[in-house]
Amino acid sequence: MNDDFRSAAHAAAELVADYLDGVPGRPVWQPMDPAERAALLEWELPEDGVGLEELLKAVGERIMPHPMGNGSSRFFGWVNSSPQPAGVLATLAASAMNPSSAGGDHADVHLERAMVRWIAELVGFPHPAGGGILTSGTSMATIVCLATARNRAARNAGRDVREDGLAGLPPLVGYVTGEAHSCVRKAAELLGLGSKHLRVVPTDADGHLLLDGLERAIAEDRAAGRLPFLVVASAGTVGTGAVDPFEPIADLAAREGLWFHVDGAYGAFGILDETIRHRYAGMDRADSLALDPHKWLGVPVDCGCALVRDAEELRGAFSLVPSYLRDDAAGDLGWFSEYGTEQTRPFRSLKVWASIAHRGRTGVARDIAHCTAQARRLGEWVEQDPELELLAPVETSIVAFRYRPQGVAEETVQQLNSRLPVAIQLRGQVFVTGAVYQGREILRACLLNASTTDADVRLLLDEVKSAGAELLAGLRTSN
Amino acid sequence: MNDDFRSAAHAAAELVADYLDGVPGRPVWQPMDPAERAALLEWELPEDGVGLEELLKAVGERIMPHPMGNGSSRFFGWVNSSPQPAGVLATLAASAMNPSSAGGDHADVHLERAMVRWIAELVGFPHPAGGGILTSGTSMATIVCLATARNRAARNAGRDVREDGLAGLPPLVGYVTGEAHSCVRKAAELLGLGSKHLRVVPTDADGHLLLDGLERAIAEDRAAGRLPFLVVASAGTVGTGAVDPFEPIADLAAREGLWFHVDGAYGAFGILDETIRHRYAGMDRADSLALDPHKWLGVPVDCGCALVRDAEELRGAFSLVPSYLRDDAAGDLGWFSEYGTEQTRPFRSLKVWASIAHRGRTGVARDIAHCTAQARRLGEWVEQDPELELLAPVETSIVAFRYRPQGVAEETVQQLNSRLPVAIQLRGQVFVTGAVYQGREILRACLLNASTTDADVRLLLDEVKSAGAELLAGLRTSN
Repeated sequence: MNDDFRSAAHAAAELVADYLDGVPGRPVWQPMDPAERAALLEWELPEDGVGLEELLKAVGERIMPHPMGNGSSRFFGWVNSSPQPAGVLATLAASAMNPSSAGGDHADVHLERAMVRWIAELVGFPHPAGGGILTSGTSMATIVCLATARNRAARNAGRDVREDGLAGLPPLVGYVTGEAHSCVRKAAELLGLGSKHLRVVPTDADGHLLLDGLERAIAEDRAAGRLPFLVVASAGTVGTGAVDPFEPIADLAAREGLWFHVDGAYGAFGILDETIRHRYAGMDRADSLALDPHKWLGVPVDCGCALVRDAEELRGAFSLVPSYLRDDAAGDLGWFSEYGTEQTRPFRSLKVWASIAHRGRTGVARDIAHCTAQARRLGEWVEQDPELELLAPVETSIVAFRYRPQGVAEETVQQLNSRLPVAIQLRGQVFVTGAVYQGREILRACLLNASTTDADVRLLLDEVKSAGAELLAGLRTSN
Repeated sequence: MNDDFRSAAHAAAELVADYLDGVPGRPVWQPMDPAERAALLEWELPEDGVGLEELLKAVGERIMPHPMGNGSSRFFGWVNSSPQPAGVLATLAASAMNPSSAGGDHADVHLERAMVRWIAELVGFPHPAGGGILTSGTSMATIVCLATARNRAARNAGRDVREDGLAGLPPLVGYVTGEAHSCVRKAAELLGLGSKHLRVVPTDADGHLLLDGLERAIAEDRAAGRLPFLVVASAGTVGTGAVDPFEPIADLAAREGLWFHVDGAYGAFGILDETIRHRYAGMDRADSLALDPHKWLGVPVDCGCALVRDAEELRGAFSLVPSYLRDDAAGDLGWFSEYGTEQTRPFRSLKVWASIAHRGRTGVARDIAHCTAQARRLGEWVEQDPELELLAPVETSIVAFRYRPQGVAEETVQQLNSRLPVAIQLRGQVFVTGAVYQGREILRACLLNASTTDADVRLLLDEVKSAGAELLAGLRTSN
């Protein structure tokens, strides 16, 4: 069987190299033919097995022609990056070894400790031993961090949540802005806190948390007998990439005894760009920071990371060692499975290591700076174009804009921009997604790919205008 | 860069093929040299990048010599399997494509729908469209299932947990046995239910849930104003692989209005073996079933799966679609990210598909049956050996036993068996782990590998007795 495996592994190497070579020449994305979609959805569980060669053939013919599109330098949708080639190779080795990085004395466990430290070093966050863990993504990292925050707050109110639960406790209240990622609300719901106890505090015009609004909300909640415990700030909001003012939030959190959590999923690594580094002042004062190496670092999906200032608090929120997992040799830090929700854990650290080490700190920083510079350029081009409108300052590498040809009524502009993302995607040249920002339908381009060129960015704007003009003509004809 | 990638991909193919070829000839596991361990732990973030070739060299020299051991046919520890070769190759293709299987119209999303269905078909669980999702493991699948159960129960009590949280609600109570996996308790803690509201109900001598104890506990809780809502049964307990009596539990759950959850992490796939299939009668009546393709199916870590009978209930527990993720073309089922906690989701389905399709249903069933047959044989050999003691019937493929040389006091037997796992592991011939079962220190062998031979199983027993005799001699000398 191993000879089979060896030749199949070489065939797989060719398959993925061909795939990656082909990305620039293909449409970014195209909808699947209904028959091909149905063939996948209705694929029958085979009674008998098929050889490795045949399986790879099926991957090449039925799967690889239908990617999400985020491998392309012309993919500007959501916050999905192209994978680092070194990280791709690492996934092969990681799955061949197939350890559980729960704990024990094998390479993956020790490498994960080092990689959590590397990530903390990259974003300038303090890293006590044990103060972090790789997760499936920031959604999970947020659950880990907020569970830790919740448990500390309840303990301060005389309650052991792990033992006693939340029933009978006054509501614990957290504070977010309207720009916070939905994973914060999902975490609050999962943790039994209730989304109505996640209060939305006001922002300034560009989406930054306003301190006086936060203070007022805290005072109201205290007066009503609720227990304020958490404030969440963003190191790059979903809609516009805005970075919240960390220093004053940290001051307030310290004064009010709140847990200060930073959602750095997409944006935390922006700190590596010297030109925008100043925006991140105070991020290192957070109690916890959640971020996604599978976004701006290009680590193949999935890889998030939770960094927590107080490692003991983190371990205390999750440690539970049944007899069959007892490991007398585990050392002071114990097992990773004591620091989060998972027992069996994949070997994520190898792809993190490869993705960072292939470029080194300088290479990673250069890639990040490339993206922010290009986003600023895109922002400038939008501002210079009378048919386009920039809707927020470009703080990191997200550009929020819309198509607004002159002399067109606001209602029609809304209609156009709500339809534009799909229309553009179908053309297959570039991929951009939409959002609603401050009541407006917008286009939202996120630049994460260091191989994206000026020409790619220009093409994005050309496509927006060309697809927009087509849509507009269609609307006028149908009216 | 792509030429570099192509040659590195071939080098990676050689590296992993060599690695897999080398597994049988190497010690199953050896502790790391302190200097090598420290080198990983203290690895410095490099300032400059290193080439792909050099990275692969480092993987071969610094990482691969230190595996967990679960690739070996002589690894009987925990519940960690050897990876399916087809699944290993699939991880390379999956990470090169690097989609987010959150939703949209790309191959990975449709393939995941098919694979959840395949898994449901394999274990004979009803599968409504949308009634399941791949997760990082059963820990996460359990959180997903229990959150859904919690929300339904609270709604029946007039409360919307997502909106309102648990504060002020009477305690929701779930029922487990002492043999339940710790992930159930961790889920209850995370969800804000509190572990004290997860009541431990009695079992029979072999670890099966006793119905009358459960009924009594429910009545007590109702009388005290608490809200019974959940019963968790196991399709293969951690300690001994016991399968709970599903039919009467399903009857009781229906009668009492409880959510019936089955933890099938390890054991659900045992249903594929005709010789033990009868034990699983009624598993298909559960409201939810959590299981791990990364265990008995050998899918490379990580891959769990949550199967939920009521797809709408599942979606209702998690759906939250912010404007930037709105997808008007998503169809009736929406996005996977509406059915669980993750937003960005890895392309797990490709390795599931490859791992199953390479063998087909018959091949998977044959592999499962090989393990259960060998476990029964191991159990017989233990029973025939006067120095060994079988501690529970072999119901699936876990064998709970201990070393008990004649004429040795119980206290010494306990001491010996608590030290045996590490002593055996250090010898590097076989890998087995321990547990405490019914107050006894035991050895617990889990058979998951279809390439494990009679000779491997014999070697396990030889090693237990030989290491045991050595330990005993050591104890006698030191006394």
